[in-house]
Amino acid sequence: MNPKESYQNILELVKETKLLESISYLLQWDQDTYMPEQGIGIRSMQSECIASLKHQKLTSNELKSALEKLIHLDTGEILDHTLSEEETAVLKEVRRDFQLAAKLPNSFVKKMAHITSKASHSWISAKKGNDFEAFSPHLTKIVDQCKEQAELLGYKEHPYDALIDLYEPGMTTKKLQLLFKTLKPFLIDLTKKLTPKKPLDTSFLFGDFSSKKQMKLSHDILELMGIDFKKARLDRTAHPFCVPLHPQDIRLTTHDHSNDLMGNISAIMHEGGHGLYEMGFDPKNFGSPLAEAVSLGMHESQSRWWETFIGQSQSFCHFLFPTLQKIFPEKLSKIDSSTFYKTINRVTPTMIRVHSDEVTYILHVILRFELEVELIEGKLQAHDIPEAWNAKMQELFGITPKNDQEGCLQDVHWSLGMFGYFPTYALGNLYAAQIFATFKKEHPEWEKEVSSGNLLFIRDFLQKNIHQYGRQYSSNELLERITKEPLSPNYHMKYLEQKYTKALP
Amino acid sequence: MNPKESYQNILELVKETKLLESISYLLQWDQDTYMPEQGIGIRSMQSECIASLKHQKLTSNELKSALEKLIHLDTGEILDHTLSEEETAVLKEVRRDFQLAAKLPNSFVKKMAHITSKASHSWISAKKGNDFEAFSPHLTKIVDQCKEQAELLGYKEHPYDALIDLYEPGMTTKKLQLLFKTLKPFLIDLTKKLTPKKPLDTSFLFGDFSSKKQMKLSHDILELMGIDFKKARLDRTAHPFCVPLHPQDIRLTTHDHSNDLMGNISAIMHEGGHGLYEMGFDPKNFGSPLAEAVSLGMHESQSRWWETFIGQSQSFCHFLFPTLQKIFPEKLSKIDSSTFYKTINRVTPTMIRVHSDEVTYILHVILRFELEVELIEGKLQAHDIPEAWNAKMQELFGITPKNDQEGCLQDVHWSLGMFGYFPTYALGNLYAAQIFATFKKEHPEWEKEVSSGNLLFIRDFLQKNIHQYGRQYSSNELLERITKEPLSPNYHMKYLEQKYTKALP
Repeated sequence: MNPKESYQNILELVKETKLLESISYLLQWDQDTYMPEQGIGIRSMQSECIASLKHQKLTSNELKSALEKLIHLDTGEILDHTLSEEETAVLKEVRRDFQLAAKLPNSFVKKMAHITSKASHSWISAKKGNDFEAFSPHLTKIVDQCKEQAELLGYKEHPYDALIDLYEPGMTTKKLQLLFKTLKPFLIDLTKKLTPKKPLDTSFLFGDFSSKKQMKLSHDILELMGIDFKKARLDRTAHPFCVPLHPQDIRLTTHDHSNDLMGNISAIMHEGGHGLYEMGFDPKNFGSPLAEAVSLGMHESQSRWWETFIGQSQSFCHFLFPTLQKIFPEKLSKIDSSTFYKTINRVTPTMIRVHSDEVTYILHVILRFELEVELIEGKLQAHDIPEAWNAKMQELFGITPKNDQEGCLQDVHWSLGMFGYFPTYALGNLYAAQIFATFKKEHPEWEKEVSSGNLLFIRDFLQKNIHQYGRQYSSNELLERITKEPLSPNYHMKYLEQKYTKALP
Repeated sequence: MNPKESYQNILELVKETKLLESISYLLQWDQDTYMPEQGIGIRSMQSECIASLKHQKLTSNELKSALEKLIHLDTGEILDHTLSEEETAVLKEVRRDFQLAAKLPNSFVKKMAHITSKASHSWISAKKGNDFEAFSPHLTKIVDQCKEQAELLGYKEHPYDALIDLYEPGMTTKKLQLLFKTLKPFLIDLTKKLTPKKPLDTSFLFGDFSSKKQMKLSHDILELMGIDFKKARLDRTAHPFCVPLHPQDIRLTTHDHSNDLMGNISAIMHEGGHGLYEMGFDPKNFGSPLAEAVSLGMHESQSRWWETFIGQSQSFCHFLFPTLQKIFPEKLSKIDSSTFYKTINRVTPTMIRVHSDEVTYILHVILRFELEVELIEGKLQAHDIPEAWNAKMQELFGITPKNDQEGCLQDVHWSLGMFGYFPTYALGNLYAAQIFATFKKEHPEWEKEVSSGNLLFIRDFLQKNIHQYGRQYSSNELLERITKEPLSPNYHMKYLEQKYTKALP
């Protein structure tokens, strides 16, 4: 085989793993939407079967020897110099996936699946019954497992680096600590400034919003954003999500609780943002890293972009509010667009991350990040978590959860062994803010357009600058290509300051 | 490994193939229900990927050498005599599946998939445009392919035997010819006798039946039959079907055309019958032949049992009709139960198999069977089909299709390469009639029960006598266990005679 043939051979082999991955996504989507209740037992076996086949294919000797012809597996050095820049990038990413998979022996992967399956089960009932004690031994096992994972994967400075890297390639504990050192005092201070003495009247956002009308509205908003329903669908689930089977088959879901209007609008714009990223890959690249998101942080930048930067902007409120008034006159006829805008952008310390506003959001992430690092370092034990959590809630927000249900048991992530995942939620906002600054410069008329309901140019901007590249460039490379600067927390702080201390009275 | 361990090992290996099969069923169900339009390209790749992995597992050396320890692969002789009767039966069936898969080389399977994929595409437009000429070359290729398949699989007397055996193990061309020799003149004669001089008034069965009300009714009827919706769901598709992912996850669909009430009721009782068979396997046997249907004929006996023997019986009409009147008073208030019963059981020669009555149904099957045998024997060529079809329509029904759309292009089966499949539709009715005779003896009060809407004892009868055994016994063995007789066409003839010449005036 000549180098071009070897490269094609690698793509073919990797495509098989990607086909299996897309099948595993269908299994998951179906489980969360339409699967009959008792399907779960064999569904787990189906999912394990596909996961194991995928791992076998990804670590096969066939792929290994194909890769070794073109790239040095240990050093990442490219051995053939006739390959294009794009092909070189693809090879490096395939090598990364191969190395990560190969470093984790099957026995570890199985044990992790076993432990997290039990832990997530336990978490559900522990959260329901507000019983951290019941979950604590599972968390201990998961932390031990994550420590072992970090050792297996390897790291230069800090074991937590190996875990973050799974979700945000190249990110480290030190870099995050630096970012958060700047953000933390700023956000604490801004929250204090913005929290109103008396709570705002939010009654018009809650009550009776017909589910059917909300579903129609959701479809309309998603189409406005550029979601093509020949390549996507929207269903209802307990928790909203985006499951991308492939660029031409994106499964979005929402929870249109009939008593919470903004809960649904935020959810569909958030998931729609994820969906547009996945829909923005060239379908002909399916199976290659060129049709995959570069990192979870960048993914989150797309969802937060649509949910908050656009969806909660004054101009979008200006456009959307009259429509909402028409659909739900009984709730909104006495409200004006400006009150609507101010109310949905109210800032106040809250217990629950997923319901928090733009200003406090990253503080919730910092709390989890700091606890995760201490757990991995062994400075904190699982059973110390409730106390440590509540202390940090006081430090960051000045409030204390009334129980663990609204405290340390609120998120599913730890029970799934996803240590290192939370920081990507913060990075998403930072990436979005920095790119948003460039976007505004390139599109000085953006507010006028958005006020008129024209959003497609925004999708095109993101597609051109981010989506089309897949994993060809790293998050940082992408950011520098777009904004001519490395990641900086300043953009996010400036954005919040402008929006909340100037535009909002 | 001792024999018990080898046996367990075989079950584990076979279970993996069954997991992959159940995943392929989900891919198919999703494709027909909820997949976005543009998902189709990569969906085909996903399906091919799973089919190929399944074939690899089913023909693996690992399975082969595990089998060889316990059973002689060529002769089927059991090599270990400590195994139970049930285990022996399982081994024989696994050997059968292994042999069938191993006899067809990958190259053949791929070519067949390629040819049928093109042919079924061509069939859709040929049917739409009433253009047999366009489909004819595809049919030629498919017949050639089926002849090759028969040679690869092997047979004793007739190449068509090898094809029937895929769907109805043990059935042969000769046996079918014998059955049809008796049935054909009887059915032709009975049809002539029963066809009314003037068509009946059927207007109350067609018109405006709310889709939503029909869906509710469908759920209610299925629950009455014993379908447990913790293990099943019902959706709408262009053509009704039952896709059994596994005994605890059965996907039923219907086409509740708002203008055809009985079309939907027949469809859900038919598919519900298939569903109950699959739901009747012990879930702990999932993956083994003990949790698989013994043959397509036996499967069809279950669907026809519910659709016609029960669903179109006087007692079920007596029970159902008042409910229908309540739901659709505007259509049915002026009709009585007896008129309803007579009208849904009207007998008359028609062009379309799927819309035909109980008496003419098997004649439609005989037509296809006779043509298939002649095609495989080479006595008939693909391009002769329209003429041959129309001649047989005259012979059997005394009518001629006005075009090929309602003639030889009506069924999808040939385009999918499913030669040998049609006879199972006839066998289903014969099995059902013979078992129904035993059922009536064992449950002399059945009509009283059914008139009161009690159907669960019927499900239990079928579960106890058929479902629970999976493939432990062959169709014939099952039939003889239940009815103490080998397959005979007399039961079906007697059933029709009694129902149509006595009960119906």
